[in-house]
Amino acid sequence: MDVKEEALKKHYDWNGKIEVISRAPINTREDLSLAYTPGVAQPCLEIAKDPDLSYKLTRRSNLVAVITDGTAVLGLGDIGGLAGMPVMEGKCCLFKEFGGVDAFPLCVKSKDPDEIVRTIELIADSFGGINLEDISAPRCFEIEAKLKERLDIPVFHDDQHGTAIVVGAAVMNSVKLAGKKLSDITVVINGAGSAGVAIGKFLLKLGVGNLVMVDIGGIINRDENYQNPAHAELSKITNKENRKGTLADAMRGADVFVGVSKPNLVTPEMVKSMAEKPIIFPMANPSPEITYELAKESGAFIVGTGRSDYPNQINNVLVFPGVFKGALAVRAKAITEDMKLAAAKAIAELVPDDKLSPEYIIPSALDKNVANAVAKAVAECWEKNKQ
Amino acid sequence: MDVKEEALKKHYDWNGKIEVISRAPINTREDLSLAYTPGVAQPCLEIAKDPDLSYKLTRRSNLVAVITDGTAVLGLGDIGGLAGMPVMEGKCCLFKEFGGVDAFPLCVKSKDPDEIVRTIELIADSFGGINLEDISAPRCFEIEAKLKERLDIPVFHDDQHGTAIVVGAAVMNSVKLAGKKLSDITVVINGAGSAGVAIGKFLLKLGVGNLVMVDIGGIINRDENYQNPAHAELSKITNKENRKGTLADAMRGADVFVGVSKPNLVTPEMVKSMAEKPIIFPMANPSPEITYELAKESGAFIVGTGRSDYPNQINNVLVFPGVFKGALAVRAKAITEDMKLAAAKAIAELVPDDKLSPEYIIPSALDKNVANAVAKAVAECWEKNKQ
Repeated sequence: MDVKEEALKKHYDWNGKIEVISRAPINTREDLSLAYTPGVAQPCLEIAKDPDLSYKLTRRSNLVAVITDGTAVLGLGDIGGLAGMPVMEGKCCLFKEFGGVDAFPLCVKSKDPDEIVRTIELIADSFGGINLEDISAPRCFEIEAKLKERLDIPVFHDDQHGTAIVVGAAVMNSVKLAGKKLSDITVVINGAGSAGVAIGKFLLKLGVGNLVMVDIGGIINRDENYQNPAHAELSKITNKENRKGTLADAMRGADVFVGVSKPNLVTPEMVKSMAEKPIIFPMANPSPEITYELAKESGAFIVGTGRSDYPNQINNVLVFPGVFKGALAVRAKAITEDMKLAAAKAIAELVPDDKLSPEYIIPSALDKNVANAVAKAVAECWEKNKQ
Repeated sequence: MDVKEEALKKHYDWNGKIEVISRAPINTREDLSLAYTPGVAQPCLEIAKDPDLSYKLTRRSNLVAVITDGTAVLGLGDIGGLAGMPVMEGKCCLFKEFGGVDAFPLCVKSKDPDEIVRTIELIADSFGGINLEDISAPRCFEIEAKLKERLDIPVFHDDQHGTAIVVGAAVMNSVKLAGKKLSDITVVINGAGSAGVAIGKFLLKLGVGNLVMVDIGGIINRDENYQNPAHAELSKITNKENRKGTLADAMRGADVFVGVSKPNLVTPEMVKSMAEKPIIFPMANPSPEITYELAKESGAFIVGTGRSDYPNQINNVLVFPGVFKGALAVRAKAITEDMKLAAAKAIAELVPDDKLSPEYIIPSALDKNVANAVAKAVAECWEKNKQ
């Protein structure tokens, strides 16, 4: 039985991958009078007096909403929120299993960014954080920015920032292993959607010297006029040599390739045209921009993909459970850039220098200790900077 | 330690009364690939092809949203949605513990009925049903009516219909025990808010001969002009004698009193002025319109209150878990009037004739078998009528 068939069968068996249970016993009259009426009036009155107590007296202290509009579900595109719910539920399972964070899946039946923002804003008091998921670019940038402005709880678009953080960790360790410096390298990112844009901006923050973004129209450069505001912004801060042309043109002499695009776009020749010790992260899923084997054969020093059946799986399950666990623990009002950098460093540091190898640059996606380390780093970062 | 203090302490200990857990194991690579990527793409694609499969492949088949705007929380009034969340969470615990139904609490930060409706409409695909809670009248009527029109999942304002159904069951059994007929009796309801209006309409559907509604302005009658559309409607279908005046005037000669108003409004004289074998349901909580003892001393045949420390606790926990369990089981698109009647009859019938007594007219609020009986009746009713 292949994974498609088996996954579908399992989903029928599960009949939903999440479940909402009671933490309060409800067996006796006394139980009822404490968890429900008349006793429940007391915590209500306390929160009415001091809204902050909602973090002590309700579940929002440990509760994240996983919200989509279904416009960019996995690689499936705009299949709608309802059809995206198995992904949202799966994400909630990972939140709980890796981070101990309760997460609840919601789909919003609208494609209008303002309406989506307003809907989330109106229900945000029910949660301690908002994880946006599978929302198409460039709408996702606008939706996230507006929510961050209006809400005082963490808002995190995982497709952007979760991916950026885990790629950042992989780049840091790879570059170290290759004996290079972040400030000296050129990174090429193929695909300037939500993930690509976020990875690009994050790598610049990490100190990458030169970044070249490539999208369907070719290399993003200073001489084009971009409709997409994210591309317009990137055109100004990337591509030091103002190179133009195709992906092949971009990759010539580059140190790192990051793919968040489509299968089989990278050829052996492109890998061979890179600087020495090429680092290749073809993360299109399930089929990468170049296969692990072909990349290796073509001389790649390090290869990391989104797949679990090859070394160096670059998966944001290493990120979001710990980021929210840490943010919720200290009641951070946002996930700041510093917190994201702290998360990437914490993940990178989980691979000790003496274990670092081309086949082991990043912890296993199944390592449930990662979330604690990320949570600690994120929480400490918030506590330090809020002073 | 009194119940207030103890309830507050417990709420601090619980740190939220609900929890979201994973139904899918997430321990191995294979687990990840089935519950999450890449396998999760399959159920997504199936739902995209056939939206009905969301009831097989996600949790909405057993999932209800418990939603408030916080405008009428318990007897505390408009304390806001955030402060109302302990009640919503408590309700979710009862849904799970009594009905096996997963329920998730949400507060909406708006008081505008249209905005509340739109918000709920946009997230409704995430759920199999909507339980509205603690929304003030007459806004609650409008919100519920609009949602019912726009959604094809059950929408149920529990403060209205849950209360109406359980009172209906209590009235049926009480009247039977008193040897009277529903069509011959006069029922007085004091308090024409959301619960009172719904109870009144429901009792008329049950076949009560004469209904007299009393609100702050006195007996609702045909010669007044009512701003509140619910009161205007009731003025036409109640009060056969077109009586006017106070609660005392209404109760003279009446068979049943139902109170959903304020403590201590009913005097011994009023009880004494009723027809023989007076049936008194003073349900203001926690202090009823007349105490159990005083009502009994004044000649009441049957007394039922909202309190668990007296006989005949009239609590809608007997209703909503079973109603939604049954509706979800058959994927009912609504909770129809017939389904509500079926629920009331099922509850009433759980007290066998030979056990019926003035101290036992309704099952215990803790009886976890009630939900199954209600679910069965509700599901059968939907199945029968949809043919």
